[in-house]
Formats: sequence, C-alpha cells, structure tokens
Amino acid sequence: MATKYVYFFGGKETEGNAEMRDLLGGKGANLAEMAGLGIRVPAGFTVTTEACVYFFKNNEKFPPFLWEEINPNLKQMEKLLNKRFGDRDNPLLVSVRSGARVSMPGMMDTILNLGLNDDTVCGLAERTRNERFAYDCYRRFISMFGNVVLGIEGEKFEEIIEILKARQKVENDAQLSAADLKSLVKKFKSLVKKIAKKEFPHDPFEQLTLAVEAVFKSWNTPRAAVYRRMNGYSDDWGTAVNIQSMVFGNMGETSGTGVAFTRNPATGENKFFGEFMINAQGEDVVAGIRTPRPIAELKKEMPEVYKELETIYKKLEIHYQDMQDLEFTIQEKKLFLLQTRSGKRTAAAAIKTAVDFVDEDLIDVNTALSRIPAGQLDQIFHPMVDPTSKAKVLAKGLGASPGSASGRAVFSPERAQEMALKKEKVILIRMETSPEDIQGMSVAEGILTAKGGMTSHAAVVARAMGKPCVSGCGGLTVEVKKKRCTLNGVLITENDYITLDGSSGTVIEGKALLIKPRISSYFTKLMHWAENVCALKVRANADTPHDALVARDFGAQGVGLCRTEHMFFNVERILLVRRMIVAKNAKEREEALVKLLPIQRNDFKQIFKVMAGLPVTIRLLDPPLHEFLPNTPGEIKTLAREMRIGASALSKKIQSMKEINPMLGHRGCRLGITFPEIYRMQVRAIVEAACRLVQKGTKVYPEIMIPLVGHINEFRAVKEMVVAEASAAIKKANVELDYKIGTMIELPRAALIADEIAREADFFSFGTNDLTQTAYGWSRDDSGSFLPDYLEKGIIKVDPFVSIDQEGVGQLVKMAADKGREANKKLHLGVCGEHGGDPASIEFFHKTGLDYVSCSPYRVPTALLAAAQSALKNGEK
Amino acid sequence: MATKYVYFFGGKETEGNAEMRDLLGGKGANLAEMAGLGIRVPAGFTVTTEACVYFFKNNEKFPPFLWEEINPNLKQMEKLLNKRFGDRDNPLLVSVRSGARVSMPGMMDTILNLGLNDDTVCGLAERTRNERFAYDCYRRFISMFGNVVLGIEGEKFEEIIEILKARQKVENDAQLSAADLKSLVKKFKSLVKKIAKKEFPHDPFEQLTLAVEAVFKSWNTPRAAVYRRMNGYSDDWGTAVNIQSMVFGNMGETSGTGVAFTRNPATGENKFFGEFMINAQGEDVVAGIRTPRPIAELKKEMPEVYKELETIYKKLEIHYQDMQDLEFTIQEKKLFLLQTRSGKRTAAAAIKTAVDFVDEDLIDVNTALSRIPAGQLDQIFHPMVDPTSKAKVLAKGLGASPGSASGRAVFSPERAQEMALKKEKVILIRMETSPEDIQGMSVAEGILTAKGGMTSHAAVVARAMGKPCVSGCGGLTVEVKKKRCTLNGVLITENDYITLDGSSGTVIEGKALLIKPRISSYFTKLMHWAENVCALKVRANADTPHDALVARDFGAQGVGLCRTEHMFFNVERILLVRRMIVAKNAKEREEALVKLLPIQRNDFKQIFKVMAGLPVTIRLLDPPLHEFLPNTPGEIKTLAREMRIGASALSKKIQSMKEINPMLGHRGCRLGITFPEIYRMQVRAIVEAACRLVQKGTKVYPEIMIPLVGHINEFRAVKEMVVAEASAAIKKANVELDYKIGTMIELPRAALIADEIAREADFFSFGTNDLTQTAYGWSRDDSGSFLPDYLEKGIIKVDPFVSIDQEGVGQLVKMAADKGREANKKLHLGVCGEHGGDPASIEFFHKTGLDYVSCSPYRVPTALLAAAQSALKNGEK
Repeated sequence: MATKYVYFFGGKETEGNAEMRDLLGGKGANLAEMAGLGIRVPAGFTVTTEACVYFFKNNEKFPPFLWEEINPNLKQMEKLLNKRFGDRDNPLLVSVRSGARVSMPGMMDTILNLGLNDDTVCGLAERTRNERFAYDCYRRFISMFGNVVLGIEGEKFEEIIEILKARQKVENDAQLSAADLKSLVKKFKSLVKKIAKKEFPHDPFEQLTLAVEAVFKSWNTPRAAVYRRMNGYSDDWGTAVNIQSMVFGNMGETSGTGVAFTRNPATGENKFFGEFMINAQGEDVVAGIRTPRPIAELKKEMPEVYKELETIYKKLEIHYQDMQDLEFTIQEKKLFLLQTRSGKRTAAAAIKTAVDFVDEDLIDVNTALSRIPAGQLDQIFHPMVDPTSKAKVLAKGLGASPGSASGRAVFSPERAQEMALKKEKVILIRMETSPEDIQGMSVAEGILTAKGGMTSHAAVVARAMGKPCVSGCGGLTVEVKKKRCTLNGVLITENDYITLDGSSGTVIEGKALLIKPRISSYFTKLMHWAENVCALKVRANADTPHDALVARDFGAQGVGLCRTEHMFFNVERILLVRRMIVAKNAKEREEALVKLLPIQRNDFKQIFKVMAGLPVTIRLLDPPLHEFLPNTPGEIKTLAREMRIGASALSKKIQSMKEINPMLGHRGCRLGITFPEIYRMQVRAIVEAACRLVQKGTKVYPEIMIPLVGHINEFRAVKEMVVAEASAAIKKANVELDYKIGTMIELPRAALIADEIAREADFFSFGTNDLTQTAYGWSRDDSGSFLPDYLEKGIIKVDPFVSIDQEGVGQLVKMAADKGREANKKLHLGVCGEHGGDPASIEFFHKTGLDYVSCSPYRVPTALLAAAQSALKNGEK
Repeated sequence: MATKYVYFFGGKETEGNAEMRDLLGGKGANLAEMAGLGIRVPAGFTVTTEACVYFFKNNEKFPPFLWEEINPNLKQMEKLLNKRFGDRDNPLLVSVRSGARVSMPGMMDTILNLGLNDDTVCGLAERTRNERFAYDCYRRFISMFGNVVLGIEGEKFEEIIEILKARQKVENDAQLSAADLKSLVKKFKSLVKKIAKKEFPHDPFEQLTLAVEAVFKSWNTPRAAVYRRMNGYSDDWGTAVNIQSMVFGNMGETSGTGVAFTRNPATGENKFFGEFMINAQGEDVVAGIRTPRPIAELKKEMPEVYKELETIYKKLEIHYQDMQDLEFTIQEKKLFLLQTRSGKRTAAAAIKTAVDFVDEDLIDVNTALSRIPAGQLDQIFHPMVDPTSKAKVLAKGLGASPGSASGRAVFSPERAQEMALKKEKVILIRMETSPEDIQGMSVAEGILTAKGGMTSHAAVVARAMGKPCVSGCGGLTVEVKKKRCTLNGVLITENDYITLDGSSGTVIEGKALLIKPRISSYFTKLMHWAENVCALKVRANADTPHDALVARDFGAQGVGLCRTEHMFFNVERILLVRRMIVAKNAKEREEALVKLLPIQRNDFKQIFKVMAGLPVTIRLLDPPLHEFLPNTPGEIKTLAREMRIGASALSKKIQSMKEINPMLGHRGCRLGITFPEIYRMQVRAIVEAACRLVQKGTKVYPEIMIPLVGHINEFRAVKEMVVAEASAAIKKANVELDYKIGTMIELPRAALIADEIAREADFFSFGTNDLTQTAYGWSRDDSGSFLPDYLEKGIIKVDPFVSIDQEGVGQLVKMAADKGREANKKLHLGVCGEHGGDPASIEFFHKTGLDYVSCSPYRVPTALLAAAQSALKNGEK
C-alpha cells in the first residue's frame, strides 16, 4: 500500500489524533484531537512530516501522488463548509501553516487567506458584505505570500503601508478605508512583480502548491536550524503542513483573536491567562506588533464566548493533563480553536503546575518529576532586584519573563553577539523582536522591547531561554542606526548600563543591586520527591565553606570536587603562594609552605564542618604553577618589590615557566612528583583539619584526589606520599580517621589502564572537561575559532563541553568504569566535570552505572531532578 | 629443597655454564663456560643474582644460609690452589666482582686483592719474595675497598699518591719503592680511619662480607640505574658476585694484563685487536688511566703466551659463534682468562662481522640479521670530515669510536648537560672519563680524552652510544676549573668550537666541513637479506624530492608522510602563505592560493617522479596558521611593508590568532573545514601533478591524508571536498588516476570511533606523536620540565616519545587497527609518527598487524632491519 500522506480533521471525518504528533506535527495532531473531542476547529487537513522528509530526500520533489491525495481532502472541506476553493462567488480561503513534532514558536512560516485573487476577493466582499474586510484579507495575503513564498522582505510591504498611512494621516491599519486597502493591493502586486520578476499568482491551486513547498523549505532556514541546534532537535524530523479553512478575527467588532494559557506560564498560578485583540488576525497577536488586551476583559466584551472558552480550556487541561497554550479566533461571535499545545513555561511555573497537578490528582509524582525540564531548573535561582535598594525606574512594561539582569545597552543582535564575544554582558533593546534576532537574544542577559505582549515573540523566546524580558514597554523608542534609545525621555546610548526586572516589568537605570531569590515550597516538595527516586547521588563542586553551605541547602550529598588552588588566589595568600613557586630550592619552598599550612588547614576545617557526616573530595593542586604568577611588567615589578628580589630575575623565572601548551604541561600529579613538598603540605592540612574535628566528635569523611594521573606509577608515587603524610598526622593526633585516596580519570591513558589504577585506588572521579579536551584534542580555550563553524555546518550537534560526547568521551568513561569495577568491586565512581550538571550527560552517567555526579552548587537541584528523571526513564541502575 | 645460591667454577669442579647467565651473570656464566672448555681461569665461585634479588627484597639482608654455602666453596678454592684465606703464611687472595646478566661496562664495582691485611701481606711478600709487589697489592686493595665499600672518594687516595710521587720525584706508580708503598698503606689506613670513622677491617671474612654487600648495593647506584634506563634493562634483575682467586699481572716484567677483541670492534676487520700492559693489574687497563700497548707487541714480548692466547681466542669465537671481548692476566708467564663476553662494537663492525660470519659458515643469515642492534644502524651514516677540506689538525689520539662531530668545548659533564638543555652541541673534553660522566657523555656530540686506550671507559661507552670518540690524546691537558684545555699548546676555552674525527683519531680546530659516508657492500648485503625477511613494509617521511631520493636509495617502499606545510616555509613562498593567512576574506585568500597552486603542484610532481611506481602519502595542511606568522615587532613591520598593510593591524591580527594550547587548537582538518579553499588548492595541486605524470606514462599512486580527524563528520566533510576537487581535476586531465583517501589516527577519539572512519577511509596512518601527547596529556614541548624527573624516579622506564607506550598509546593503536579492519577488510594500516624508526616500536607494530611503518630517510635501514628481526622473532604477522 502506498504511504498515506494526508489526514483530514474537522467534525466527524477526523482521521488523526494527539498520539500521531511525529507524523502530523504537534499542531495537526492537536487539531485532530480537539476535533475528536467535539471542540470546534476550522476544518482542514494535514500533509505529513513524511511528505516533508521525502521532499528533502528527493531533491525537493513532492511524493508522486501527493496532489491526488490533497484534492479529495480539499473537496471534503468544500463540502463541509459549503464553499469552493477558487470559486468567484463563494470562495473557500485557507491558511497554510507549518507544524513540527515539537513546537518551535515563530521559527517557521505561515500563510493566511490563501485562495484570494482579483476575482475571489470580489466574491468575499459580496458574501461578507464588507469590501474593506475582503481587501484587508487580500493585502495581508499578498504580503505574507510575497514574504514567505517569494522571499520579499516584509519591511518592503510595511514601508508602503507607512507611506499610505502618513498620506492619509491615520495612525493604525484599522483606520485605512476599503479604497486605501484596494490601492495597497495594487501597490503590493507591483512590488511583487518588480522584485520577484513575475506576476503574483492568480490561480489558487498554484498558490497552494507554492505555499506547501515554501513551508517545507522553511524547515531548513538558518533560523530554524539554529533553533533546533539550540534545543537538540533532529534535522531529520521535517515539518507537517496544515491546510485549514480560514476563520476571520478581523470581520469587525464582533470578531477577534487571542492566545491564552490555562495557567500563568510565568508563575504557574492557577488562573486563566492570555490576551486577545478585537478585529484582528492571529498573526497580529503572536508577532507582537500591536499590544493586546488581557483575556479577563473578554469576559465583559463577549460573555458567552468567554464562557465557552472557559469550558474548553478546562476540558483541554484535564484531557491533556497538562497546562495548555491555546490559539483561538472569534468570527462574528463564533469561537474557533486554532491550536492547543503544551504551554511553554518558566521553571518556576513548571514546578508549581506540576506540584499543583499532583495535588489536584491529575498526575502522579513520577509524571510530575518527568515533566519539568531539568536543564531549566536553575532559572528559579535567577537574581532579582533588591527590593530595598533605591533603584531609579526609567520605564515600566510587561513582566514577560522573570528574573533580573544588568548589562550594557545594545540595539542590534549583531552588536550583541560582537560584545558577547568580548565577554561583555549586554541587554538587547528592540522595538520588537523577530526570529532573525534569535542569536542576539541567546547571548544577551535580558531583552527589552517596546511592542509586544506576554505572548509576543520576545516573551516566548525569552521564557524558553530562561532570560529576563520586559516587553510592551510603552515609554521606549529605539533608534537602531544611532545606537540609542529613549526611555520616557531619558537617553540611553550603546554601552550604558541598564537593569531589567522581568518579573515586575521594570526598567532600571544603571547596574541595580541584585539579590538571590527565595525558594518556594513547591520547589522543596519537588526536590524531596526527586531525592526519593534518584539512583545517582548528587554532590557539589565547592571550593569554599560558603559554596558548600549553599550546596548542602540544595540537597547536595557531599562535595565531589574541592579545588584547593582556588583558595590560593585569595589576596592574602597569593604572595605566599608566589613565594613558594619562585623559590630557588626546596628549602625556600618549604618555608613558604609552612606558612600556607595553617591557612589551608582552616579552609578544609570549615568545609568539613559544613559537610559533617558527608564525604568531601579534595583535589590536590592541579593547575600549572605559572598560572599563579603575574604577567605584566608592572605586576612583576610590584611582586619583586614585595618579595625583595630583582624584577629582572623574577621576570626571567616567570618567562622560563611559561608553557607552549599549559593544558598538557607541568600540572596535576606531575607537580606532586617534582615538588613533593607542596602535596605533602596539602595532605597534612587536610588530615590535620579532619583530625581536629574528629577529636570534637564531628563526622568527617575526607577523600583525597590525585589529579591528572596517566600512569600507574604516578598514582603509586603520590599515594605513597599521601599515606606517609596522613599516617603521621593521624598518629600524632591519636584519633581514628577513615579517609580515601582516589584519582581523577581525565586523560585517555588513565581510562585505558583503569584496571591497574583501580587495584590501588578507592575511587575514580571522571574529570570529563579535560577528558573531552584530550580525547577530542580540543583546547576549550581555543575551540572558539572553529566550534561555531562546526555547529553551523553540522559537523557536531552539540558542544561536547556542554553535553558529554557519549560516543567518544563516553566510551572512555564506560571503559574506565567497567575496567575499574572489574578490578575492584568496591571502587566508587563519580563525575566532577561540568557535565555533572547537564541532564543529558547525567542520564548517560546513570546508565553507565556511576555512583554520583558532582556539579556547581546552583546546579544541584537540576542534577537531582535529572537523576530522578533518568532513574524513572531507565529504571534502577 | 633450599635455593642454591652459590656455584663453583674452575677445573673439573665447575658447576655452571654459559646458558646460566640470568642466574650467574654474564661474567660468572662465561667463566664457568671457559672452565668447562678447558681454558685456564682462576678458580672461584659465583653468588647468584637471586641472592641479590633476595637482598633487596628483604631490606638488604642476605639469604639465611648464604654463608653456609659460601664457606665450603671457599674451602674448595683453598684446596684447589693450596692456599688458605686469611692464612698468615700462604694467604689466598680473591677478587670480588659484580656480574649482571648483561654487560654494563664500568657501571658497577670491583675489589681486587681481598684477603690482605697487615699479617697476610707479609706472607704474600715472603711467598713471592717480592715485598714491593705485596705492598703494591695491599695499597691497591685498601683504596679500592675504601672507595667501593666505605664510600671514600678515589681522588683522596690519588692525592696521597701524587704527593708521595712528587716528594720522591718519580713519574709513575711503578717507580715507587717497597718502602714508599709501605708508607702509602699506612697513610691509606689513616685516611680510612679519619673518613669512615673506623679501622680498616683486618679480618678477611669481614672484608668479604662487606665486599659482597657492597657489590650488591652497587646494583642500585644512580649511575647504574641511569645506565639501565638508557639501555632499557630491568631494575629487577640484580647482579651476581664473582669471588675469584687472584692472579697477578703486577708481579714484575714477566707479568701483565690486557683486554682484547677477537676482531676489530670499530671496523669489524677480522684481525685480533687489543691492548696489554706489563706489570699491571686489570683495572689499570679498563679505567684508562695508563695508555696501554697494542696487542701485537705482546707477540714479540712473550711469544708463547701470545700463541696460547691466539689459540684460545679462536676457540672462543668459534664456540660462541660471535666476536668476543676478552680479559686476561699473565702471572709470571702463565696465561689466565678472566672474562669472555660478546664484544661491544660499532654498527659498521656489527654489520661486517655478521656478514663475515655468514661467509665463514659460522652462522646463518637469520642469526646475522638478529644479531645487529637495529637501533644503532644509523651510526654508519654518521658524517665524517671531508678529506678534501683543509682542516687544521690540533692533535692526534686514538680513533676510539668512529664518526665525526663538531661542537663547543666543555670540560665537565654538568656543563655538557646545561648546554645541551639550551640545544647547544658540545664536545666533552676530559683527562679521562669515569662512570660519573655518563650523563654528560650521553648529551655530547663527541668525547675527547687525554688518557685511556681503545678499550678505556670513554672508548667503550662512546662506541655503545654511537658517538665519535678520540681517546689517549697525548697532546691534551685539561684544566677543569679554568674551563679550558691546551691541545699541543693551542688554548681552547669553553664554547670554542672543535671537531673530532673518531675514525682517524684527529682533533680539528673549529667547525670542520663534514660529509656523509659511503655505504659499504656489507651494508648492502645485509639490507638485501632484511628486505627478504620483512613482513612490514618500510616507507619514509619525506617532504622534498631530495628526502624522497635518499629514502628510495635506502630501500624505502614509498612515502608514508609528506608534510605539505614544510614546503610553505621556503623563503620564496612564505610571503604568499602569509598573505593567504591574514587575508580579510575568502576572496583575498583565494588570490594568494592561486599563486601557491603551481608551486605546490611542482613540489608534488618531483616527489611523485622520484617515487614512481610506489605510493606517496600526502598530508593536507596540519599546523595552526599562526605558526607561519612572524612574532617579533621587527619581523611584523617588515611583513606589513611587504604586504602593504598597516603594521598595527597586522600585529592585531597575529595577536588574535595566538592560541593558549596550539597543540589542541585550530589545526589539522579543522583548518580544512573552516578554510576549505586551502585544502581545495592542495588537492588540486596533488591531483594535477599526478595527472600530468600519468599522461607521460609514469606510475603514480597518491594517497591523500586528512589530518587530526576526531569525528566522523570531519572526515566526511573533508572527503567530500577532496573527491569533488579530485574528480574535477581528473576529468579535466582526461586520464585514469587511482588515488586513495585516508586519515591520520592521532587523537584518542579517532581510535575510539575507528570503525566508523574505516567504513569511509582507504587507509589509516597512526600519528603516534600526537596520539602520545593526547593520550598521556603530555605536551612534547613542555614535558622537559617533568620528564627527566619521571625517568630519574622510575615513574616511567622509557620516554614515550622515543619508544611507543605499548600499554596505553599502543592499546589505542591496537583498538583502532582491530576496529578498522573489522569494519573494512581492505583498510591499509601504517605508522608515520617518529616511532616508525624505533626498533621496539616496530616490533609492536609488527605484532599489531600493521602494513607498514614510515620513518625519516636515514632511519629506513634501521626500520628495515628491525622489521626483519621482528618477523624472525614473532613469525609472519
């Protein structure tokens, strides 16, 4: 049997359902589902994603009998609606929309009012007895089709409208007369002819063919590709195309259109939330060009319609067991649902709705846990403006995406990217955002727009990215070319600092004081559930008592990585450290180390105290020593004076320590072997700190980690030194202390000989950052010169420093874990690279059978949730 | 049964034989063997290496019943010689010598005349009726024992002798009277008491116990450890101790001692070769303190003895089927053999003797091939002083180790090492060398000594190291502290250049013109045998037509690595290359590339021509582009002027291209992906060059190699580009061209996904240099800061950049080879890292089943021989 490429929806003839989203796309599947539930949707049909895949696999050709399938479906629509496609007197108009298996808001293209031409527009005018409406539809169709299908810039059409409005002295489109719109149609058609070098197509079937083709192609636009890459979606899925009969929100004051969420997508509050516009088509709302009205006002405006909408949204939420994002149109007081889908929400909203849904008995705990995107969880720790500070508010807009951020003002996405490359924090300020702005938005700290509501492009994208956004900021005017804007008359030029509060919608002058938010009870409940489900333990990377405290509060089950060198950078200590480094011999070095000992001991004591009862893994000194030395002549001079040595001698020493490839240089246990006195001091500090606490009855579990081991003899040599030093200290303190000795597995060679190491080690901690650098041969610091190109060209799908390269680096992790466990059944396995906080990587580590992951304190909840999700998905390890 | 730790030798009671060298050490086993053959050796016994191993494993304690075993053996000696150990009237004196399973000349300690004390010395004097002789023995014994057992510097004893000689106004020791020697004994004993803080031990049994202990301990002296590490010997072998009755070469004019080789160890000439001294003990010859006489003169001096020696040496050579190195002593015209062992020889001598032995029907071809140390083969390509040049000869000495070298004069091994670290070439100039000088010798280009003969320490070690050496240079006096010497009155100070010709024994002023030597017919014969036996093919790394020609002459079976970038550094081209690099856009880059194309094409054409009929693997551009750019402000200014751009803009550009870890940076195929136009030009140059030759009937087999692949998509993207470019060029030329596309496997990740790559590649070439850097996480350029320490501390046994790390890096090679062959049966496998010329690595590659190794042109013979040896040892792969 030939593949079925077309599925009908609407009324009883509906063929699809919500389960078929991979084939019909999310929109098509949900339209079919709603029709199946008896909810009124404009009838239509879906061309499947398989047709799109075929199209790209076959040199952009449609499947052979596609149109033989489409035509009967079109006939079915004509029959159901009693209209005919292309008929002069009673024309059927359709929308053509993309719909991929996952929602990619604003990413792909849509065409409305297709089927209009110079003939059918007259029929429409006559039937609706509204010439103005008919030409409004027609001019919208020409500009959309011209833009999406013929590739003419939308601005060109806008310019023509602006000139006309200026000439007619009107402020908005709605004030244009039928005659004005007629003249617009003429002008639009000549614009098309001039730029596309052909007449605007008259034949509705030709219009439809070109439109379907254009929607398919929209799957492969750069902006769609970027969006997929950012979200980890496959390029191979393709998009479906929905051809649906038009309903009109722009048929006057009894018509309208809107989008709504069944609950508040920013906070999760259980209250219907949305916006609508009277006498407008759907694109007006989503594109954020006009500022719409809150949904509550619809109740007064059209009470029956609102009541019906209320019934429907509740029905849908219960049916889907999830918060829904709806699109609807009211055509002459008749309500049509155009779309329903799982609503995008902030992490805070995701948590609250999931917990509420459990309380409402709609879903169970495991479903609630599975539903929250773990990667976005740390959004809830976004800072907010200190309410007690005296911030100068420049303007107010909509609090479109929560959290606060400060940065330098920029007015174009390109400039945002340039400055981000220089590590500048920027706030992107635009009249409105469009999909072309995506990359600029992704590097900005926050987004501010003059136009657009809570569901505008800027708002939706910012929420998805977890960035603060203030939209619809009336007091804002932007002059892109002059690189400046005014906020209620205050001039802001490029590089000036501003602060956004995306929760309250305020724009603040300069850099405001930001504070960390409080944690909600919903969050606490969720974390509690997660901990019960986790198989992997979650520890934190913490270098200071403060970090350790934060981590423990978030549920960390120990410290997985305490980097002793971070303590070295402290201003009071750096001179001692430098003295130790430039020491002329072991004796001088010892002298400096003797002074460092009590300082390090106290550091460890504080961390052990905070983590009482839990393991604390301390890594011995790792970075190359030259990293602690100054670089500029001025700094060197200062240091030389402080150290009372000659500046030129010091400079020479520093020069001689420089390395060509410091990543592969004199660091890690190589330091411990060439300068054993440094490691000895550190071990003494660790063990003495632990012993002193044990003497006071505190439970301390130190784990001493030897970095950068590649050869078994490195491990043996350092272990011997550690044991000797530790035994002496323990003996001296006369206590019982249980400590462990292990190593980082961060070099390919270590993974290759993991069995040998495991026979002598208590634990492995995978340092997946360095393992990625060495396995791939990629310097993290230098990969910026080719990695963006690699992502752009699809050489790799994901930055391997963000999510672990399971195929290559992961193979080494698995090899080392298997070899290690084989050789030592008691071997404890963890991860302390940055992948320890990445949900996809955590799932991999769970499946590989590790015991724990360790991540930065604020990622602990994310890791706990991801670990819980992984356990639910993959079963107990 | 308890372990037997002691074996007797001498006469019919001999217990051991030559097969037992692991247990008895080389010296002990061969003494037993000689005794077994009926050759006269002083009777004695060997304490086994197992006793030494026991000693070190048990906290430096002897095995429990060792002395219960030694005593009967001592009795047996007493019986055989009719003397008694410690007997006042007829004392048995013994030597105590180390003897490991392999010869470590001068590395370990020896004590002669043990058993003497204030009583027995009288007995000896009476029995020999030679008081002078007896006290000469006694004073030698005290100084050796003092030095070896009690750790007193030899110089201290020498000083006392020098003072005495000066007072007595005599020139050499032999002129000292019995009374002088008696006073020396007294002085030596008080020196011992003063420094060792105890009396010199009187009891011969105590002397023996301490001596055996000291010999055991000498196994672990730093200089012995260094020697083992340099030669790849295990620390675990231990040394045997030979306790042997003394015979005396210093009993007057009818006595003497000597060392000899059955053939010339420098040239291989089949002529008895050696030296002797009248009235001397063996240590005088080996230590090189007195200059001995050529062995031929012994014929006149003692014709019967010489005749007996001749019979013995011929017997031994036939018995051992190898050239022998003998030690003998003549005591009152009676000849004793003290040692025989396989003689160390130069590579040239090894080749000639092996070929001669085959011609003489002593050994077969395979034995001949196995016997030549492949790693030393390239010695024969050592340069020599151009005989047509007008070199100013400063002095003449003995041509102790062939080859020539120039370098800066240094006078201490420490200074030699310091200067070598700065990449200076040095010639080490000493009065004589001793084992303490080993490390200095190993970094020097050549060695010059005032004293010592052809078998002196300097000569033996230099030959083993394959370095030129001139010894016994009479016109030389050295002033170490003043850092200068005179050569027949000409003053040479540190840093002055001199040249040694170790073949003729001449010392030449300044840097002489050196030329490459001619190849002997023996070498050609050997290479022919090797080629017939090899399983691995041997290719060469050749970047120029000249390199390719040299390689082909040496028997290279293709080019395994042609580094295109080396062509870029040529003065005429570098400006074009730099233009290409700093191009502001692809168009500017293309313009520079268009000019480079014909140049590269011609390079390839020349190499293809030389290698007609053989494969040539060309690697596309690999190093980071910034390597081609200038660094200093001056150079940048010049370049900016040449390029007609601003110096500060250029400087900025260069700065922006700098990388933190260039080894892991923007290089290899990463360049090909970000700047495809560069690779396209190179492919066009390769294919066009090949096509033009094919048109003329030349057989060309280009293999295009994509460097630094880590991800399958990198390989795919570049391959696609290569195929497109190559196909176009082939089509245009309208010829048939068979070319291959493959990759370097030089990143751990590439090895991990080798199956994926193999499905799309024709060949792999292992880049084991970079694979070692990434697997170990060691930057070759930076490892100098810890690698010496690692070798010193025994963390690693061999520098993994010299000989492949079989356990780690080798595991990756094996993994990639296995995965690759599994996925693609036709996959061709080779190695192009520097390990391709290292015999141990070659054996590993043979066993791993690779198809070929590729090495530098002058290493081709070494590789061929090593490949043949590996095939003989391990069978066909």
